[in-house]
Amino acid sequence: MGAAADLRVASKRNGFVRPRSAVSRLTAERLQELYAGTLALVAEHGYDNLTMDQVAEATRSSKATLYRQWGSKSALVVEALQCVGETELELPDTGTLRGDLLSMVERAEGQEHDADMLAAIMHAVRQDKELAEAVRAQILEPGRDRIREVVARAVERGEVAADCPGLVFVDYVFIAPIVLHHLLEGEEPSQDFLRRYVDGALLPALGIH
Amino acid sequence: MGAAADLRVASKRNGFVRPRSAVSRLTAERLQELYAGTLALVAEHGYDNLTMDQVAEATRSSKATLYRQWGSKSALVVEALQCVGETELELPDTGTLRGDLLSMVERAEGQEHDADMLAAIMHAVRQDKELAEAVRAQILEPGRDRIREVVARAVERGEVAADCPGLVFVDYVFIAPIVLHHLLEGEEPSQDFLRRYVDGALLPALGIH
Repeated sequence: MGAAADLRVASKRNGFVRPRSAVSRLTAERLQELYAGTLALVAEHGYDNLTMDQVAEATRSSKATLYRQWGSKSALVVEALQCVGETELELPDTGTLRGDLLSMVERAEGQEHDADMLAAIMHAVRQDKELAEAVRAQILEPGRDRIREVVARAVERGEVAADCPGLVFVDYVFIAPIVLHHLLEGEEPSQDFLRRYVDGALLPALGIH
Repeated sequence: MGAAADLRVASKRNGFVRPRSAVSRLTAERLQELYAGTLALVAEHGYDNLTMDQVAEATRSSKATLYRQWGSKSALVVEALQCVGETELELPDTGTLRGDLLSMVERAEGQEHDADMLAAIMHAVRQDKELAEAVRAQILEPGRDRIREVVARAVERGEVAADCPGLVFVDYVFIAPIVLHHLLEGEEPSQDFLRRYVDGALLPALGIH
């Protein structure tokens, strides 16, 4: 755990995580594969429920190796989150806030994996601060930055008032249907639902009707 | 939203759920205690992570008894959700939508247990339909009914336009900070945050500025 924490600090400083010596025997490709496999298992089984045995079997590793190299499930998942970076999506720039938001929810569709992952890890992050920080830094903050940036541009264009009280809550309102729809309705939101949500909830919360 | 509050409504609506015959050897009091203990463990450990051994130990039952009477963890938790009711909370009726919403978020504060429970069960409900239905019927739908009722009254009073497109999304916007704040910020929302959210996001989404 201590070494993992050191690694995390190092990774924050240096960008891509430098594998520790014990890990360095694995090729970068193999490591990437192992991390991706781990995160897929988290999404499938739930973080709490996932065992190192399952990780070992699915990634064709030995459990002893996993423990020697990462020390704990938490450390392995934290590193997996840090290393498997999402491919940088270009921020939409359609010229209107509505166009940008519709473009963003279009991309949200088909990203059930993210919703799965958040659901799978939601309880664990309430109890494991390190895990929570990794989830925030790797999954949540980049998403919040994107929505804030799109809205900031709308403020610059004069589409949204600079003192609009909804500005500080727009990330909550944006994320809500993506994370909550499955919980409330038993399925992921449709594209049609998300588009109506932009017009019916998100834009009005920013004073646009 | 408040599962506790919602459970009260649910218990009123459905009447106390009649225990199955196999369970009827336990007194109603003992059963209530066992169900409450089970739900507390779900919130603490996460549904996925919870074992029948833990339930047996915490509720001073034998594991064999638990399996004989409920058959599975899922069935036990589903029945616990259906049976643990509390005294009903009256729906606020302050005469304005803002007053009613502020009154509702006031009650939401201090109900971290409910947010814990939803987080604990969020992954499992994606895979267990019966569990999902129990969570929806006992926790989520009563909460959604409450917010819809408060807003319907505001429409009757003319505070909100009957064709306001935000009406169908108000439950998402209402629930968002309660379920998402801990995930995004690492702690439950403060009363001050929730009050500002009502004015800054919820009322504007209903066309009130």
